[in-house]
Order: sequence, then structure tokens, then C-alpha cells
Amino acid sequence: MSGKPQKLGVIAGNGALPGLVVEAAQKQGYDVCVFGISDAYDLSLEIDHKIYPQRLGQTLRTIKKNKCKEVVIVGGVTRPNLFRFIPDFGTMKFVARVALEAKKNGIGDDTVLSILVSIFEENGITIRATKDIIEDIMAPAGVLTKSKPSNKNDIDIKRGRIVTDTIGDLDIGQCCVVCRGQVLAVEGPEGTDEMLKRVAQLSQAMRGSVTKREGVLVKLPKTNQDRRIDMPTLGLTTIENASLAGLAGIAFAGEETQLIDADACIKLADELGMFLKGLKP
Amino acid sequence: MSGKPQKLGVIAGNGALPGLVVEAAQKQGYDVCVFGISDAYDLSLEIDHKIYPQRLGQTLRTIKKNKCKEVVIVGGVTRPNLFRFIPDFGTMKFVARVALEAKKNGIGDDTVLSILVSIFEENGITIRATKDIIEDIMAPAGVLTKSKPSNKNDIDIKRGRIVTDTIGDLDIGQCCVVCRGQVLAVEGPEGTDEMLKRVAQLSQAMRGSVTKREGVLVKLPKTNQDRRIDMPTLGLTTIENASLAGLAGIAFAGEETQLIDADACIKLADELGMFLKGLKP
Repeated sequence: MSGKPQKLGVIAGNGALPGLVVEAAQKQGYDVCVFGISDAYDLSLEIDHKIYPQRLGQTLRTIKKNKCKEVVIVGGVTRPNLFRFIPDFGTMKFVARVALEAKKNGIGDDTVLSILVSIFEENGITIRATKDIIEDIMAPAGVLTKSKPSNKNDIDIKRGRIVTDTIGDLDIGQCCVVCRGQVLAVEGPEGTDEMLKRVAQLSQAMRGSVTKREGVLVKLPKTNQDRRIDMPTLGLTTIENASLAGLAGIAFAGEETQLIDADACIKLADELGMFLKGLKP
Repeated sequence: MSGKPQKLGVIAGNGALPGLVVEAAQKQGYDVCVFGISDAYDLSLEIDHKIYPQRLGQTLRTIKKNKCKEVVIVGGVTRPNLFRFIPDFGTMKFVARVALEAKKNGIGDDTVLSILVSIFEENGITIRATKDIIEDIMAPAGVLTKSKPSNKNDIDIKRGRIVTDTIGDLDIGQCCVVCRGQVLAVEGPEGTDEMLKRVAQLSQAMRGSVTKREGVLVKLPKTNQDRRIDMPTLGLTTIENASLAGLAGIAFAGEETQLIDADACIKLADELGMFLKGLKP
């Protein structure tokens, strides 16, 4: 009854997560085919095919030729300029749909990604979530660290949830930093780490410091985010950057946030005297 | 009937605007007394007294001693760390009220400023708006430049208004940048110019350029902003920074935005091929 191993395509954006998915899938016995997104995937990752965001038709054909009926799209991708592409036929359909949506409502990443997912599905390719492959990647609800949020931190978390939900509804970003009730930064397309670096550059009078931590990073999935291909993700780098911004800790959506290398993250946060708290819905 | 000239206190934060207010007030025959906010006011400004944000009681006494029943608070101030002050008695009351409000709702600049205004008023000091002194400082509604917003720019402006209104309601900031429907940045306490510099650092694929302008800066007063002491302000520097970020133009609230040196601003925008558009409510 062993038969041929099941095929799984991994479409790899940047960061370490694609490599972890490949490893976990292979351990589970999948026959993995890795598609590296040009200009994005980590060069230490061994790929089978390079794919180009502006060549969606070609990408779909490559995936089909490799008989991957299931794919995981994992890792970050800087949103390419959809309107400057020289699109192939597959991409043209995609661009046309995005442009139509943009005319109505303006576009954010969610719109682009949800159209992309439908195009995959219309081509008979199922999108699998990272957590289906790496089963312990989701951080639970509750405080994971020795350090716990103080009352002041809880007030900041409360305000940060309101702000993050609102900017999520508007498809702007998925996190913000609040310190003593004041919103110090809202994430845009620059991403969480660049946002945290910005906070670190603000006047010390407005924020905490490594020796006297104040303020929180609150990171939550956006309302219309496709949870299969775009989950909030935390890892060592974000904890380091939050530390340099003088923050007391990080609050995230419990059960809805990928914590890469959880043990190392918790150990680092403990060493830095920071908290990691998974929020309940 | 000439009598003694009326006294006017000018509390000066940073930038060129305080100097313009002093000049305009003197032309109108006011006896002007200038209070420079320590670490903020422009050193080229001749001041009568230096005042310290952490010494509000002393500041109120100085203003009263100088018999200024009316003051203009003008120019930018980086919000000091209210919780690290060694406050004098006047400031203690202020800090206590801010802390109380922070416990309930968290604080932003609006809360701090509105409490500050009430404390001045309780001390018999009337706050006058900059526009009462410099009468032609408010930019009108309508397009002021040769360049007009394209249909694409209008879509970005529409989305930018929704985003700016929302972040204004949350007391986060008063402007954002939208390009091809995507929100590229939301203003926090770093201010408009730093936000624009951030946009200029984003990948060219996401934004316009000096040679092919795309995207808009939308700047609107926050919902609860005290229009007497905290009006959205535009000047040459912001136009220059918007240009470097590759933007097509700037949309602002007509009749509710201070345009410093309007003629020079319009001339510069025309030279750069950018639009300035005052929005109707």
C-alpha cells in the first residue's frame, strides 16, 4: 500500500520559513518540488525551478508539469508592481482582475493575494497552509515567557488591538506599536522589522529602552487575510528588533500566528526580559 | 482713542511659522511678547522669555506677569515625555489629568493638547488661532496648481481620505500616502516629512518617481484636533519631500490647512509638475 509518495509544491518567498516547510514535508514523506520566487527566495534554499511573479501563466504550467496538485506558498514577497509588468497570458488575466478591483476600491495585499489564490484554484491547484505541514508552528494563546505584561502594558495592548484591527480592516498592515497609550508606528508595506527600526529611532522620551522596557508590539491577522498563504509570523529577528525599540513585549493572535522556532524565541525573550503573549479572539 | 496697544503672547514651537505670526501681529499693532519653548523654538527667533514644557505652573505665571490675556501657540513641538518630568505644581495637575485620561482610553496628542488648552483657559488666558493673526494663511478648496489630479490620482485621494479620517479618529496621525490604491505609509509621531522620507526609501516598484509621478499625500485635520493650536500645515519642505517620494501631488482640507508662503509653494509645485488640491468637506 506504500505506492508513490504524494507530490507537494513549495512556492518559496524570502526568509527561513520555506526551508523549514520543505524539511517538514520531506519528513512526512512528501515528494517535494521547490519553486523559488525570483528575487525573493533565500539563496541557501535548494530549488527545482525558479518562477517569476510577472509570469503567472508560465508558473501555473510549470506547477502542472511537475504534477503538484497541492502547493504551499510560504515566505515573504515584496509586492511587485503589477502595473509595470510585461505580463504573459496568465498574468494578464490576473492584472485585469486586480485592475478591475482597484478601480472599485483601491487595492491592498489582501485583494491581490485573494485573486491569486482563486486563479490557482481555477487551475485545479489546492493551496495548503504552512501549519498543515509544520504542525507545531502556531503559537498558542496565553503568556509564553517568564515576563508577563504589566497593567500598563495591558492598556497598551488594548489600544493596540483596536488600532491593529482598524488598519487591518483597511488592508494597511497587520501590526502597530503602542507606548503609554500613544501609537508610535503603524505597519505599512515596509514590514514589521522596518517599522520596529523606525520606533527605535524615535526620541527616547516617547518610548522605552533596553534597560527600562515600555510599550508593546501588537500583531494580528488582517480581517480579510487568506489564512492559508498569509499568516502573521514572528521569529527571532522580530524579537530582537522589538528589544532594540525598547518594547516590553509582543502581543499576537494566539492560534493564528506562526512562531518560527518557538523554543529559541521564548528563550531569547526570557533573556531580554520581554513577554510574548498570545491573545484570545 | 489709540490707547495702549493690545498685548499678545506668542508661544513658539519649532519652524518658521512663529516668526511669521510675530511679524503679522506687530504689523497689526499688537504689543507682542514671545515665549520660546525650550529645545523647540527656532534660534533665529528673538524671544522675550524661554519657557519649559515641564514647568507649566511657571509658564502660566510668566504669561500672567506679562499681562498676556491672549496667546497663540504656534509651531511644532515634539511631545515630551509627560511621565518623566519633574513637574512643578501646574504641571502636576496637568500630568494627573493626562494620566487619568490615559487610564481610560490611552492618549494621543489630541488628548494632551485639549487638556493643556483647558488649563490655559481656566487661568483666564484665551487661545487664539494662527489664522486670526495671519489672515491669508488658510489654503482654499480647489486645485491651486497648473497640474491637476488625474483619474488615478483621484482614486488614490478617495482611499487616502478614508484612511486619514480613520487614523485621525484613532488619534494616530493626520496624513497618509496612497499610491495605486495601496497605502504606502501612515503618519505617526515622526511627522509628515519623516513619513515622506520613508516612502522615498520604498522599492521603486511600489511608488512613482520624479520623472513619472504617482500617488498622493492626503493630509487632513484629526477629528478631535483643537483647530486653534494644532492645524494641519503645509510648506515648502513638505512639497520637496513629497516630490522626492515620487508623488503626483498633495490633497489637503481646503479652508482647514495652513499653507505657509502660499505663492512660493504653488510656484514650487508648478515647477515640479505636482498638484496641490484643497478638498471640500
